[in-house]
Amino acid sequence: MSQINPYFSQIPQSYLFSEIAHRVAKHAAARPDQKIIRMGIGDVTRPLCAPVIQALEKASRDQGEAVSFHGYGPEQGYPFLRQAIQNYYRSLGAEVDAEDIFISDGAKSDLANLPELFSLDCPALITDPVYPVYRDSNLMVGRRVEYLDAVRENQFLPLPDSSQKAGIIYLCSPANPTGAAYTRQQLQQWVDYALEQDAVILYDAAYEAFIQEDLPRSIYTIPGAEKCAIEICSLSKTAGFTGMRCGYTVVPRALVREGHSLHDMWLRRQSTKMNGVAYPIQRAAEAVFSPEGLAACRENIALYQSNAACMARTLDQLGIWYCGGKNSPYVWMECPGGMGSWEFFDKLLDATGVVGTPGEGFGKNGEGYFRLSAFAAPDQVQLAMELLRNWLTKGD
Amino acid sequence: MSQINPYFSQIPQSYLFSEIAHRVAKHAAARPDQKIIRMGIGDVTRPLCAPVIQALEKASRDQGEAVSFHGYGPEQGYPFLRQAIQNYYRSLGAEVDAEDIFISDGAKSDLANLPELFSLDCPALITDPVYPVYRDSNLMVGRRVEYLDAVRENQFLPLPDSSQKAGIIYLCSPANPTGAAYTRQQLQQWVDYALEQDAVILYDAAYEAFIQEDLPRSIYTIPGAEKCAIEICSLSKTAGFTGMRCGYTVVPRALVREGHSLHDMWLRRQSTKMNGVAYPIQRAAEAVFSPEGLAACRENIALYQSNAACMARTLDQLGIWYCGGKNSPYVWMECPGGMGSWEFFDKLLDATGVVGTPGEGFGKNGEGYFRLSAFAAPDQVQLAMELLRNWLTKGD
Repeated sequence: MSQINPYFSQIPQSYLFSEIAHRVAKHAAARPDQKIIRMGIGDVTRPLCAPVIQALEKASRDQGEAVSFHGYGPEQGYPFLRQAIQNYYRSLGAEVDAEDIFISDGAKSDLANLPELFSLDCPALITDPVYPVYRDSNLMVGRRVEYLDAVRENQFLPLPDSSQKAGIIYLCSPANPTGAAYTRQQLQQWVDYALEQDAVILYDAAYEAFIQEDLPRSIYTIPGAEKCAIEICSLSKTAGFTGMRCGYTVVPRALVREGHSLHDMWLRRQSTKMNGVAYPIQRAAEAVFSPEGLAACRENIALYQSNAACMARTLDQLGIWYCGGKNSPYVWMECPGGMGSWEFFDKLLDATGVVGTPGEGFGKNGEGYFRLSAFAAPDQVQLAMELLRNWLTKGD
Repeated sequence: MSQINPYFSQIPQSYLFSEIAHRVAKHAAARPDQKIIRMGIGDVTRPLCAPVIQALEKASRDQGEAVSFHGYGPEQGYPFLRQAIQNYYRSLGAEVDAEDIFISDGAKSDLANLPELFSLDCPALITDPVYPVYRDSNLMVGRRVEYLDAVRENQFLPLPDSSQKAGIIYLCSPANPTGAAYTRQQLQQWVDYALEQDAVILYDAAYEAFIQEDLPRSIYTIPGAEKCAIEICSLSKTAGFTGMRCGYTVVPRALVREGHSLHDMWLRRQSTKMNGVAYPIQRAAEAVFSPEGLAACRENIALYQSNAACMARTLDQLGIWYCGGKNSPYVWMECPGGMGSWEFFDKLLDATGVVGTPGEGFGKNGEGYFRLSAFAAPDQVQLAMELLRNWLTKGD
């Protein structure tokens, strides 16, 4: 007799963004006249840049000729891409060995799968609010999850508490959903704590390309990190790859626990449970890191950053508290008028057609907050802000 | 303090095909003069067919224009592809609802991840010999694995033993590594057994397109299967997609255990732990199922089938026992002269440059057997068979 996994019933039945998609679809069906402006899910809207498209088309044609056809690729990814990523890390001030880089189908998969390297007795420490994948993927397998409060009092950037034991630590900077980003000194505190505790940090750097101020863009810019941290990154936000599925994860060979190399364990896990990323996608990813690719991606990011600045200005004008928006595509705002976060979601959608993400979906400390994403088209963001302003001020 | 997963040390340190690649690289470095003929890993060599390349190029260009750009796709895959697969199933004589089809990055991932739906107390029943992913992915998480002997006496097609309890049952037909394929009646015995036991069959149909005789190409051609079976399939072998990464898995909504829908659980798992397959890849996959795509794929398969027939003829001439080769790209041969399977691997490589896969790598019952794959170019297969014949007969 089969026995089902009992832990699935301990998480919400539907993934947060599936629930939002469901509510929006229902609303759109009931109000076909109203235009929906999507600022909920963090999905990019700009097309891929020309150098990436050229590489993708070239690699597509390669697959049609026997002489240039590529079947199964190397398990960790093609050396051409790992080398390009190593060079990119160097430009961020981090020395990472190409041998330590693993190509994946996205940060989400790796963030959810990396805990497999650890005993189920080893708890996961996550912040609250948090990207729900960290929480749900661990609860689903029966791993204990401990929470660290990210609240307005600590600028939504909790620091380690040396009296608290830790095994696996998830950190995300710039953070999803709050947009808050750790300073070098703060990140050093985390690295020192992990080294002292013999803990392992899973560092989600998916939003590093949005950093504008002098803040660390990789945990490997922090001394000691190679002995306690795995970094997970993605081309989704850096290069608009949400529909292309390519990310990368660094598992340094210097990271050893109980005499075992986590690098070797991850290689064993990946080579047993997946078959890498499509060749044309890896060629497209390589083009992201060419000088032309980086320049074009930077233009797209600048556009999203100007969207975030537009949102920030509007909230300033309305006197609404927020953080993020500067080094992040996310603005994390307080719900106006003391509204609950799902209440604000529903009312905002109803009044303006604007879709955001209720803070509560990211954890209990998200109650009363709301996430807006800067990935929509500029005219849409401007329209959304105008609608928000009109709606909130019409009673004045 | 982090604690590592203790179960990793209970599996061989290296995935079978990584070990083979390592030995071949070492041999090639020592013998640069000798040409290597790869008939080990089941990787295709024919390029993708024209309709697939056209669809891939078109979708690549789509990603470069705002109006046709695709970001995150639907979690289960695009409806256009799920519909195409439903139609394909119909052509195989199976009624499958498009709603029950999940697009994935390949059969390997799904085969390794599906056990997450079950309690770790629920053992996995696998055949021996077996595709190592079934075994390793379960042992790695601490799940008990039970073995069912696939031996020459049962034509390497074990049938259920009604006195044996079962939870999760992995079946592969046509089988990897033996090439043996179940008849309708035999598969009905498995379905009846699973229904009686309340077990769940994970049915790996990755090689269905190679079936030439009147044998079931989907478990859903067997009455009752929708209540006890999940089918996992892939475009790797059907359409040469090993370097493209696209597969599909059917989790019927009729499959309910302990009051829970496995379909809903899998949707929750997939939407939490991955983000689907790249848009251009899904468009390329759609083209596989067009009339032109199916015809072109069939031509490539016919070529691989003629390779298998060439291998079978050679073994017949040499008086070596084998199975497979008819409804499968694999020929499963007895090692000549009573050699052990790794011994034959090394000696064959040394004498001829031909790489195969030692049967022992697939389980204890594989000792003394050897797998040859038919995916090389026809002239290479002919050359390999000539070299094998010369080597084995030179002592006569």
